[in-house]
Amino acid sequence: MAHIDLGVDETLFPGITGPLRFRAETAKPLNELAEVLLRGPNSLPAGERELIAAYVSGLNDCTFCCDSHSAFAAAQLHDGMTLVEQVRADLDAAPVSDKLRALLRIAGAVSESGRNVTEDMVETAREHGATDVEIHDTVLIAAAFCMYNRYVDGLGTLAPADTGMYTEAAQRIIEHGYLRRG
Amino acid sequence: MAHIDLGVDETLFPGITGPLRFRAETAKPLNELAEVLLRGPNSLPAGERELIAAYVSGLNDCTFCCDSHSAFAAAQLHDGMTLVEQVRADLDAAPVSDKLRALLRIAGAVSESGRNVTEDMVETAREHGATDVEIHDTVLIAAAFCMYNRYVDGLGTLAPADTGMYTEAAQRIIEHGYLRRG
Repeated sequence: MAHIDLGVDETLFPGITGPLRFRAETAKPLNELAEVLLRGPNSLPAGERELIAAYVSGLNDCTFCCDSHSAFAAAQLHDGMTLVEQVRADLDAAPVSDKLRALLRIAGAVSESGRNVTEDMVETAREHGATDVEIHDTVLIAAAFCMYNRYVDGLGTLAPADTGMYTEAAQRIIEHGYLRRG
Repeated sequence: MAHIDLGVDETLFPGITGPLRFRAETAKPLNELAEVLLRGPNSLPAGERELIAAYVSGLNDCTFCCDSHSAFAAAQLHDGMTLVEQVRADLDAAPVSDKLRALLRIAGAVSESGRNVTEDMVETAREHGATDVEIHDTVLIAAAFCMYNRYVDGLGTLAPADTGMYTEAAQRIIEHGYLRRG
């Protein structure tokens, strides 16, 4: 049970979807931010952006966001859930490009504190081909999931045990995006 | 110097204002979220919402956000900067209502992790008159500043030493809001 009465059946509207229904005024910019960051035009593939979101949500121990964005990443990455799990288990050894590894390291630093991002981390990402927009978006995706994770858990929302629900949600997100979520 | 080339003179566009100019696509929902949370219709006065933002930004050691939202809170609270400084120095002893103190405690928990918000904290806020929407908005303001703080510091932006700049910015925010920021 969430800490407040969200006015929905939480088994049907788990995680962030309950709070998004509870308060339409805040849902609008929250959904728009997810849409532009994770699905807007970008040189970083959507699957890699979802992977950054899943990775940060895992570091923040947010079960709902980690499970859902892991499913959204897996559905859009060539190596699917295997790659997501490798990145989450051991970033140093995971079979990702050097650029993506460098961006995920920046995202991991942001999850602790913005002050933990060093000039060296940024320089490494740039040496491996990351553009200023890609570095910017990585920092903001990581920062945004520090918000979404705290929103979901700070209200004590439900995280479904049935991960099949996330696979279905992935198809809806890929087809319709975040603006029609909730 | 910020970690990426923001394309602005950072002394004129410090803190979040540089990144907002750098990427208009993400600036739109970021500004809309600040506007609805901090200035939209609400039973919590704008000064108290800005105080929650300043308090969380202080806990996150984000100089730019803490100094700016402290000035925005002070400009809209009866006891001005004195009260902001009392809350930031010792929340237990600060002369705020029991309701606001309980909401600030929830915000402080969110700054660490959403999982740190307890049923007891929420119950205390409710006993002192907080509504479900006020509890929701407190959690989301705190969560959102965990994002803004990491965005500002993760990109290594400049925080002005001249706090007079924040007092001027407070007047612009009160008159024109967050949608015309940056």
